Amino acid sequence: MSVHLEEMLAACKPYTQQGQLPSYIPALKKGDPKHLGVCLLSCDGQLIQAGDCGVQFSIQSIVKPILLLQALLDNGVDAVRAHVGVEATGKPFDAINYTDQVLDSQHLNPMVNMGAIAVCSLIRGSSYQERFHRLLALTRLLAGEDARNQVNEDVYRSEKASGNKNRALAYLLKTYGIIQDDVEEVLDCYFHACAISTDCVGLARIGCVLANKGCQPGAQDPIIPPEYARFVNAILTTCGMYDGSGDFAVRVGVPAKSGVGGGIMAVVPSRMGIGIFSPALDAKGNSLAGTRLLELLSRELNLSIF
Amino acid sequence: MSVHLEEMLAACKPYTQQGQLPSYIPALKKGDPKHLGVCLLSCDGQLIQAGDCGVQFSIQSIVKPILLLQALLDNGVDAVRAHVGVEATGKPFDAINYTDQVLDSQHLNPMVNMGAIAVCSLIRGSSYQERFHRLLALTRLLAGEDARNQVNEDVYRSEKASGNKNRALAYLLKTYGIIQDDVEEVLDCYFHACAISTDCVGLARIGCVLANKGCQPGAQDPIIPPEYARFVNAILTTCGMYDGSGDFAVRVGVPAKSGVGGGIMAVVPSRMGIGIFSPALDAKGNSLAGTRLLELLSRELNLSIF
Amino acid sequence: MSVHLEEMLAACKPYTQQGQLPSYIPALKKGDPKHLGVCLLSCDGQLIQAGDCGVQFSIQSIVKPILLLQALLDNGVDAVRAHVGVEATGKPFDAINYTDQVLDSQHLNPMVNMGAIAVCSLIRGSSYQERFHRLLALTRLLAGEDARNQVNEDVYRSEKASGNKNRALAYLLKTYGIIQDDVEEVLDCYFHACAISTDCVGLARIGCVLANKGCQPGAQDPIIPPEYARFVNAILTTCGMYDGSGDFAVRVGVPAKSGVGGGIMAVVPSRMGIGIFSPALDAKGNSLAGTRLLELLSRELNLSIF
Amino acid sequence: MSVHLEEMLAACKPYTQQGQLPSYIPALKKGDPKHLGVCLLSCDGQLIQAGDCGVQFSIQSIVKPILLLQALLDNGVDAVRAHVGVEATGKPFDAINYTDQVLDSQHLNPMVNMGAIAVCSLIRGSSYQERFHRLLALTRLLAGEDARNQVNEDVYRSEKASGNKNRALAYLLKTYGIIQDDVEEVLDCYFHACAISTDCVGLARIGCVLANKGCQPGAQDPIIPPEYARFVNAILTTCGMYDGSGDFAVRVGVPAKSGVGGGIMAVVPSRMGIGIFSPALDAKGNSLAGTRLLELLSRELNLSIF
Repeated sequence: MSVHLEEMLAACKPYTQQGQLPSYIPALKKGDPKHLGVCLLSCDGQLIQAGDCGVQFSIQSIVKPILLLQALLDNGVDAVRAHVGVEATGKPFDAINYTDQVLDSQHLNPMVNMGAIAVCSLIRGSSYQERFHRLLALTRLLAGEDARNQVNEDVYRSEKASGNKNRALAYLLKTYGIIQDDVEEVLDCYFHACAISTDCVGLARIGCVLANKGCQPGAQDPIIPPEYARFVNAILTTCGMYDGSGDFAVRVGVPAKSGVGGGIMAVVPSRMGIGIFSPALDAKGNSLAGTRLLELLSRELNLSIF
Repeated sequence: MSVHLEEMLAACKPYTQQGQLPSYIPALKKGDPKHLGVCLLSCDGQLIQAGDCGVQFSIQSIVKPILLLQALLDNGVDAVRAHVGVEATGKPFDAINYTDQVLDSQHLNPMVNMGAIAVCSLIRGSSYQERFHRLLALTRLLAGEDARNQVNEDVYRSEKASGNKNRALAYLLKTYGIIQDDVEEVLDCYFHACAISTDCVGLARIGCVLANKGCQPGAQDPIIPPEYARFVNAILTTCGMYDGSGDFAVRVGVPAKSGVGGGIMAVVPSRMGIGIFSPALDAKGNSLAGTRLLELLSRELNLSIF
Repeated sequence: MSVHLEEMLAACKPYTQQGQLPSYIPALKKGDPKHLGVCLLSCDGQLIQAGDCGVQFSIQSIVKPILLLQALLDNGVDAVRAHVGVEATGKPFDAINYTDQVLDSQHLNPMVNMGAIAVCSLIRGSSYQERFHRLLALTRLLAGEDARNQVNEDVYRSEKASGNKNRALAYLLKTYGIIQDDVEEVLDCYFHACAISTDCVGLARIGCVLANKGCQPGAQDPIIPPEYARFVNAILTTCGMYDGSGDFAVRVGVPAKSGVGGGIMAVVPSRMGIGIFSPALDAKGNSLAGTRLLELLSRELNLSIF
Repeated sequence: MSVHLEEMLAACKPYTQQGQLPSYIPALKKGDPKHLGVCLLSCDGQLIQAGDCGVQFSIQSIVKPILLLQALLDNGVDAVRAHVGVEATGKPFDAINYTDQVLDSQHLNPMVNMGAIAVCSLIRGSSYQERFHRLLALTRLLAGEDARNQVNEDVYRSEKASGNKNRALAYLLKTYGIIQDDVEEVLDCYFHACAISTDCVGLARIGCVLANKGCQPGAQDPIIPPEYARFVNAILTTCGMYDGSGDFAVRVGVPAKSGVGGGIMAVVPSRMGIGIFSPALDAKGNSLAGTRLLELLSRELNLSIF
């Protein structure tokens, strides 16, 4: 894995000035828009990194594929698909997939908010606290260490306080029986999940397990079934970058998930996982400089799966 | 006012079997679908009635014009119109008037749920309890007596427990800053308002004030400004019967408001107010036999304003 | 009918500068935005007028209630209602009332383009030329004279050339079997209908027949059935001013129909018909100064039916 | 390439009975729903086939990626992307991507009808006849022989006669200036393109060029730029199977395009092209047994790119 990471990072640095910190979650406005970091972890265990790789940030929507993995582990593919769909919505991350007084669960996608909230209710546990702790344990297993991946309480409280759109989505899910539990409990699990702290290395590790048929780098025994990794990678390709997924497929060409915390986790099947961090976002909520850096990396390393 | 009320009521009685009690509010399922009552109160004070006029039922959406009146009294026309629109939505009573990630307050109509919830926040009061009590006082003033118009606690609790669609609507309003107060407090006011008890005579009295340029029957001094009565009557005509308003205008031709409790309040400008009760509803949430009875009355008494 | 028409007209004249001539029909851009005219014709035959009453302009959407009348005369209410709905659409005049791959004829409204095109196909005739000539004859009957109401060929050709949105609407109607004839023939009838020339006096005469229970001013024998006049007046109230109908109901309070040619025909039941002309339009396609003048007239003459 | 094609084909044969021939294009109703054929062509030139591989059928929507390729060859990526978007629409193949009176060209996708019609207008040529012949020449170049790929005149005439939904879409594109030429000429090119005859072998050849970095099997020199092949493959993955693309990505996991003629062209990057034919369709317009056969093949040959 020979690549001039520092040079590419320097080339993308100016883009950090073109994005915006998200305004609707107060705690995220405190981020430093100049940050840019990248970490590559190959399936055989090589790790290279550059820039702000040690900076912690909240995982946000990048937890969605992990929520989906936990739901798959707990219920299997058929049961999960009976509750949520897998088609792209053609709409922004917080859209209401709802027209003509009907809410069709097959119009929900686990990579956008409404579907992800529905997925929370599929995780097993006697309480939503327990469900969240099982999710956190899976996150740590995938990220390969325990020290990271605490919940950022400040971010959690900020999202809980400002999360009225998510409440609207959740009450709509409840209206149509797609979730049956107490809405605030479901959302508490969801807000906690979004507030898990991570860094570029952690995201690269998670991506690497998805790239490596469910195995940790260098290992042979899968920690998650390979068919679930493939399932998640497929959904990431069609919907992982919200309504910018088509553009990302054309420009970069690998499964990936972004979060409004500024992270992007990318999966290069059979080759590597990539973690990126740059908190200034484009209009669709994806890290602006991060996306550019991935585009450069894809061209340089010929990463596209197409 | 010479009219064979009993005969017309008998002619419409069979229609009570064609409607359905609303299934989504448990307390309303307890109604007796055979009930049918009607009361006419002329602007000069004549009152005639037939059928189940003494039966109490919850006012439900018929409180929406009273909410609007209270908001007009507290803020004036311009301030109210700055917060909610007056155009028909072309959609059912509980529709989400929301597309393409934008919530335009001018797309809210005070006669459907989302707009009515927004109107609650326009009523003056140091608490939502006080706001509700001011609304209740106005309702009693319009209905002309104090004994009626209690809150049906059973209905209130039932709607509060099952009102998740309204919660979704309210959190969406809050997301876009159209309401700023605590959602559960606003909804508590709204659910209390919908649960006010009334009967045919009460509705006829309210309708008569709207018909009589803001004056109680036989009186000369308005208890509400005549221009507010006219404002409300105009909105009732375009939107009072939800997405059945056009059909009602064509068939009956007077301002009216229905509620899922089975009531209809009709306003015949300069002539009379009418209260109807029959709890079995048509597909759009309007009293089925009640609408038929109004159609007969309109033809017989030449009520249409067109 | 004592009213200071000239003074009111002068008061509204400045509003002619706030509107815009429609840009999407080239021939209409040639209009003089300073024009403002008004004519009142009472049911007992008094006629007063002021301003630019002799100026000819194209009837445009004000032909829609006449199309509807012809369809009612040819088919009766039930057959017409089986083909088009009567509910407000909540959308602009040229909107596509179509979601989720279904076109429900009951979502069409004869006062907006898509519904009006559907109504063309309900008029009887062995050719669309014949259908148009029957419509033209009805228009002349209502307007009370033959000399007026020619087709403005320049406007007709301009609309035919630029009417691609209407073609899209018509082909959608054809796709779902709501119209079955050749689309260009149906549209040719529609474009001819919109291009009929009229003036304020003509519109006042048409409005007066609708106000006077189907009778010409001063006459006793209806030229159209009174129930059809009432039917049309009801639809005008809920939808005659497009998605500005609610605002118009609140401000003016009478059935009315506007056209992008700058005309407004208003109906004051049992009292009078009003014709207005001022070609500069507001954002919803209604004559801006014309609407203001009607608002003044309504307040002065107490015209509101509410 | 060792695979028991005959056995897999036999296993999928029963699914041919579950689909439906498309009802809205009369000429396609004449197809034999029992047909099932498959052809695999590896990048090094090995070809294996089974079942009804010699049967000719119309290419239909599988011409969309070829239209896109021609537009890319004629204009480059940037110019094409300025005219149409690349995001999934979340809607059926003939959906109107249009809300709130705005038509945003970035909401058009070249893999659904509205976007593909827009793409027709990007192909160079002094007439639409010439444009079509350039497209036909590209199709023959990709499919590797001249004898095939005639236009099925019967299918062409049938689609032209019944294509009113496409006319509605095209007139909407014209309304908003996205196409500027005569609508019937643009559509004539589109209907001709959809009516090109092909067979399983032809589709496998086209798919193989896309899989083989723009080169014909066994060749080293690309006949189309490799970056255009990658561009098309990316869009096929997110949108090639209409609103069944997400399901297909999860089940099969390769870029593919279906047509209502019963064909599917699949691309396995760096490995092979696949052509499938089975005319009975599922509810989303994709070949039902064909999709099942691809799912089996993907599992057996480990084709998924995820």
